[in-house]
Amino acid sequence: MRVFGIDCGTEITGYGVVESEDSGRQPRLVMKAMGAIRLAKSKTPAERLEQVYRELCAELERWNPDAVAIEEVFYSVNAKSALKLGQVRGVALLAAAMHGISVAEYAPLTIKSSVVGYGLAKKEQVQFMVARLLELSETPQPADAADALAIAICHIHTAQTLARQGAAKH
Amino acid sequence: MRVFGIDCGTEITGYGVVESEDSGRQPRLVMKAMGAIRLAKSKTPAERLEQVYRELCAELERWNPDAVAIEEVFYSVNAKSALKLGQVRGVALLAAAMHGISVAEYAPLTIKSSVVGYGLAKKEQVQFMVARLLELSETPQPADAADALAIAICHIHTAQTLARQGAAKH
Repeated sequence: MRVFGIDCGTEITGYGVVESEDSGRQPRLVMKAMGAIRLAKSKTPAERLEQVYRELCAELERWNPDAVAIEEVFYSVNAKSALKLGQVRGVALLAAAMHGISVAEYAPLTIKSSVVGYGLAKKEQVQFMVARLLELSETPQPADAADALAIAICHIHTAQTLARQGAAKH
Repeated sequence: MRVFGIDCGTEITGYGVVESEDSGRQPRLVMKAMGAIRLAKSKTPAERLEQVYRELCAELERWNPDAVAIEEVFYSVNAKSALKLGQVRGVALLAAAMHGISVAEYAPLTIKSSVVGYGLAKKEQVQFMVARLLELSETPQPADAADALAIAICHIHTAQTLARQGAAKH
């Protein structure tokens, strides 16, 4: 299973590709790619959205994931920021839809619980656990890419739990 | 000059195409098309955004406008609504950018002032004036399409004013 995680932001949008290898009792998680789309400030809002869309489409075509995982709406931001973030998020969801890839959304609390085991974990703890779970020698940089990897890991963990529950029922 | 106005909404996104014909002292405004994209509730958020994007792209290709005009951010909505509206708006801005069409943004007050002559005009007054300026026998329906036509008219008026100011300088 290959999952493409996206961490949307109005300045930097991170992404990360994680694959679960089912070789043995405990599936291994492997980081296939990660990166960040940095938006040029000189561009118009529409041009910036085009940049995010084109780069995400290129990565989706390159990695052909089974699913896209994205962070759920964060409600406590103000309306102005929410609208700007929504514009980027809309383009990310569109990129998945245009490639026929299903999208899973996870709340920040769920992502942290899934990766660290604690919903109120700090950013550094999440980054540390992402590196450990993916057997990376260093903390993934930038933080936006690490967050995207965390979202992808959360989706794989969730899918594994659902599969186990399904197997237990039968 | 042909302008494509878009009125973004989370359920219905209206659009309208207005052309200014420079035949005589007072340029005539002609409505070339109008419509509304109604989003199916059965679809996922990503599929809904795909629908908006595909329909807007089809209309932009059909009408090949000189500019896209869109309402500026409306700040008083709550963050949740703003994020959802932002997603649709992002996809609309992307559609323009992917076709190399420049985007102009106008505040609601500017649009009403431009169409009715009064920034705090009611919705019905805007619709009445849109019908009158475009010499339509009936009020354009749905209201979202009328709003999109109003945005397009606002852009044409603004461009005409700028052109006149430019001419006066020379």
